[in-house]
Amino acid sequence: MRNVVLIGFMGTGKSAVGQILARRLGWTFVDIDRRAARRERATVPQILARHGEGYFRDVEARIIAEVAGRRDLVIATGAGVVLRPENMRRLRANGWIVSLTAPVDVLLTRLGERRPSLGGDARGEVVRLLDQRRPLYRDADLMIDVSVATPDRVADAVLAFLGRRDRRTVPVHLSGRDYPVHIGEGILPLLPVDLAALGAGRRVAVVTHRSVRRSAAGALLGVLRSQGFEVSVFDVPAGEGSKSLVMVGALCTRLARARVDRHSTLLAVGGGVVGDLGGFVAATYMRGIRLVHVPTTLLAMVDSSIGGKTGVNHAGVKNLVGAFYQPSAVVADVRTLQTLPERELRSGLAEVVKTAVVGDADLFEFLEDNLAAVLRREPDALIEVISRCAAFKARVVEADEAERAERQILNYGHTLGHAVEAAAGFRGLTHGEAVAIGMALEARLAQRLGLTSAATVERQNALLARIGLPVRLGPVSRAAVWRALALDKKSKDGVLRWPMLVGIGSVRREQEVPEALLREVIGGSR
Amino acid sequence: MRNVVLIGFMGTGKSAVGQILARRLGWTFVDIDRRAARRERATVPQILARHGEGYFRDVEARIIAEVAGRRDLVIATGAGVVLRPENMRRLRANGWIVSLTAPVDVLLTRLGERRPSLGGDARGEVVRLLDQRRPLYRDADLMIDVSVATPDRVADAVLAFLGRRDRRTVPVHLSGRDYPVHIGEGILPLLPVDLAALGAGRRVAVVTHRSVRRSAAGALLGVLRSQGFEVSVFDVPAGEGSKSLVMVGALCTRLARARVDRHSTLLAVGGGVVGDLGGFVAATYMRGIRLVHVPTTLLAMVDSSIGGKTGVNHAGVKNLVGAFYQPSAVVADVRTLQTLPERELRSGLAEVVKTAVVGDADLFEFLEDNLAAVLRREPDALIEVISRCAAFKARVVEADEAERAERQILNYGHTLGHAVEAAAGFRGLTHGEAVAIGMALEARLAQRLGLTSAATVERQNALLARIGLPVRLGPVSRAAVWRALALDKKSKDGVLRWPMLVGIGSVRREQEVPEALLREVIGGSR
Repeated sequence: MRNVVLIGFMGTGKSAVGQILARRLGWTFVDIDRRAARRERATVPQILARHGEGYFRDVEARIIAEVAGRRDLVIATGAGVVLRPENMRRLRANGWIVSLTAPVDVLLTRLGERRPSLGGDARGEVVRLLDQRRPLYRDADLMIDVSVATPDRVADAVLAFLGRRDRRTVPVHLSGRDYPVHIGEGILPLLPVDLAALGAGRRVAVVTHRSVRRSAAGALLGVLRSQGFEVSVFDVPAGEGSKSLVMVGALCTRLARARVDRHSTLLAVGGGVVGDLGGFVAATYMRGIRLVHVPTTLLAMVDSSIGGKTGVNHAGVKNLVGAFYQPSAVVADVRTLQTLPERELRSGLAEVVKTAVVGDADLFEFLEDNLAAVLRREPDALIEVISRCAAFKARVVEADEAERAERQILNYGHTLGHAVEAAAGFRGLTHGEAVAIGMALEARLAQRLGLTSAATVERQNALLARIGLPVRLGPVSRAAVWRALALDKKSKDGVLRWPMLVGIGSVRREQEVPEALLREVIGGSR
Repeated sequence: MRNVVLIGFMGTGKSAVGQILARRLGWTFVDIDRRAARRERATVPQILARHGEGYFRDVEARIIAEVAGRRDLVIATGAGVVLRPENMRRLRANGWIVSLTAPVDVLLTRLGERRPSLGGDARGEVVRLLDQRRPLYRDADLMIDVSVATPDRVADAVLAFLGRRDRRTVPVHLSGRDYPVHIGEGILPLLPVDLAALGAGRRVAVVTHRSVRRSAAGALLGVLRSQGFEVSVFDVPAGEGSKSLVMVGALCTRLARARVDRHSTLLAVGGGVVGDLGGFVAATYMRGIRLVHVPTTLLAMVDSSIGGKTGVNHAGVKNLVGAFYQPSAVVADVRTLQTLPERELRSGLAEVVKTAVVGDADLFEFLEDNLAAVLRREPDALIEVISRCAAFKARVVEADEAERAERQILNYGHTLGHAVEAAAGFRGLTHGEAVAIGMALEARLAQRLGLTSAATVERQNALLARIGLPVRLGPVSRAAVWRALALDKKSKDGVLRWPMLVGIGSVRREQEVPEALLREVIGGSR
């Protein structure tokens, strides 16, 4: 997200609005005038009187040059900051220029005791300065007339603007209702605004991992509390073991003790485990309370947080007990990915590649061209990747409401991927690594069936390899893969059907594969 | 349900169709000709030859007089049974007349070796007899041309006819999809036809109480199995204690072991506990499988089985964990009420009276006029009562989808009712008895507020008293009632709002009640 730079005439409330905004965003507030005064150990009128306006403008410009490049700032400027184009160029490079305006009469009233500084004919002076600066004040990203608004309402308007401009929003259209997936960098502080817009009650239950609270997402709690939300935090241990009915019961007991009620909101802040578990609790506590997903892993952002699947493991079966339950919003803040372990990032990219291969050739090309930036976790690259994946998943989920089969292309690489994951005992390989191997093997099936070219398979595998993902079974037991395949729950009438690679961005639905061919590609035998 | 009486010419397949029908309905098959032959120790042609047609017709008529009054019969008649009006009058009084027809050529082909019995000119004889009897064969409730249908398909057509004619069906219209509530007497055997129409898989999981299996509902299992359904039965102990997450987990484990999958159907056969628990399991097992409610208590038929509320108790809170999950159908067979304990029947009638008071003045009058028949459990009276309640509940549920507040009028009598129930420790009083007291007290509140007349309150309470329900607090601790009221979870902003009685069939939404008035009506103090 960009900084917020408040410009405008004296008396428009830049400092008051700025302080409110900084508190609500959990950002740092910088008042240029006050900083100048501190540095010069004098008030601004004293500096002007002693050294002249040129001197003051130099001090001001130096401070702006220092702070403009920093992040997460709300900057209140002096009324004259607009006079030097260099100031505005610097501030604009990394910030939204928000201009606060008001009619002359309102300004005169508001200025009150500061009027004498304008000299004898205050009105004349205000009119003169405004006429001179009006074009400069108008050169802003957002103009707000403050004459009938309290500083709090002005801050609301700025936050709403940031919500529109500093996030990409992918809408998920469902027959019942729609919900947005917001993607951006540092956008978690906007969540309270979204909650207010949803008409959410004051009570918020956060289901998360202890480790997540220490990360970028942890700041969200403070922001929520600072805006009057009563936040209760419910930590669950990391790992699939937390996805259990026992944990559901324990969480529901704790929610009841914390007086979470049907007007409350549950935030699931974390990866797939937190999303699946927290989502199921939200789906069933008091027959369903408002749910917001805040995924903090790449895998959760591009896949599990979208589509409404929630659930826990039971009787040795993954996700045996669950519900389809749509969130009210999903907020994917790529800042939370900065601390993600390297291997988890690369594993998440396996699902990204899958998305590209099954339905988005442009995304595939983007990855080929920008992989270094993605691996360096550059926000813009991550936002592009996640937005495209979210949009694709949203399209599939929407189609799925009408036609369940549509979702099956998402299964590309996963039939063998799951078998490989199971064969490796869910330990040796991450889910993403197993899926990468699955995609490589399933692509080979398609090639041997004459559905795709060797060049296409090679292109897919080359990208996977550049990411650092495996494309060969390696030491995984072939016999164990065969056993896992036989148990695959998606087999209908005992016959497995596979989504088949045709070209990059194009996968055909469901085809049977001759066992002999499977044996050739996997090796070993059932 | 009425008997099925098959009439028609020789060769139309009355016996074959009749046997299939009897098996599929779990009913007794009666073949009049065969019974006559057994009784006379001779074949029908022999009887005709020895004693003449008049003698045979007398035998036939006696058998019909004996069986026509019995229930759950499929009766295949001889071709000539229609000749005596008295036969048809008797059969029709208690049965549907289903006439099987076919063109002459088809009949001649089908008759095959039985043709000689028609004499030399078989075709001429068939044409002569058909011409003579055609008006008689046409005097039927249902005519089916069997010339292009197998006996199984003919049986399907008869069952579909019974489904339309022997049940009342109240549709519940929801935005997502609609579902029917079928009400009738002895209609459970039609459920397999419904399941087939729903495209349900062969596997059926029945969640029920052991005691229910010994009742009228138990026969359902045999009917399902006889039609090729693989039925697994899961007994749960009676009582609220079964509504727990632990029981949900245990059931899901057992469902998984029984290989119940996403194509399977869960039948919840029992009262409110089975409906709430089984419904929640259906809502969450594999993220939701097909659910059919088969309520076997009056309370479940008129209330809990309609509206999609499912759930279990947790952390000491009723229904804390649950889901809104709509069934694919509800089948209320009043035959299952014949063995319901007397007190449960009367308690269920409390909710019936509530329905009448809040929204169906005709139902109230029907109860006043026909209470004896209802208490004697006469099927027609019960069907009328349940149909009206189901229709009312359906209307409220439908409105509720748009406007949640609409449902609140259903809460009439329940704010104090729940408090009284809790104060009595959920033991001394049944839910219905507590609701009856609640209605009496809440009606008094409305009267004291000038919203309704003393005559209206008296009319409500008189009906409750005739049913044998309490209308006074009696020995229940007033202090405990006050404590329970303070905990009521429906209180919003700490203020309780009460649906207010205006007239029979008319309750106004939500009103606050001054504490002094509450104290006057309840007695004691908080």
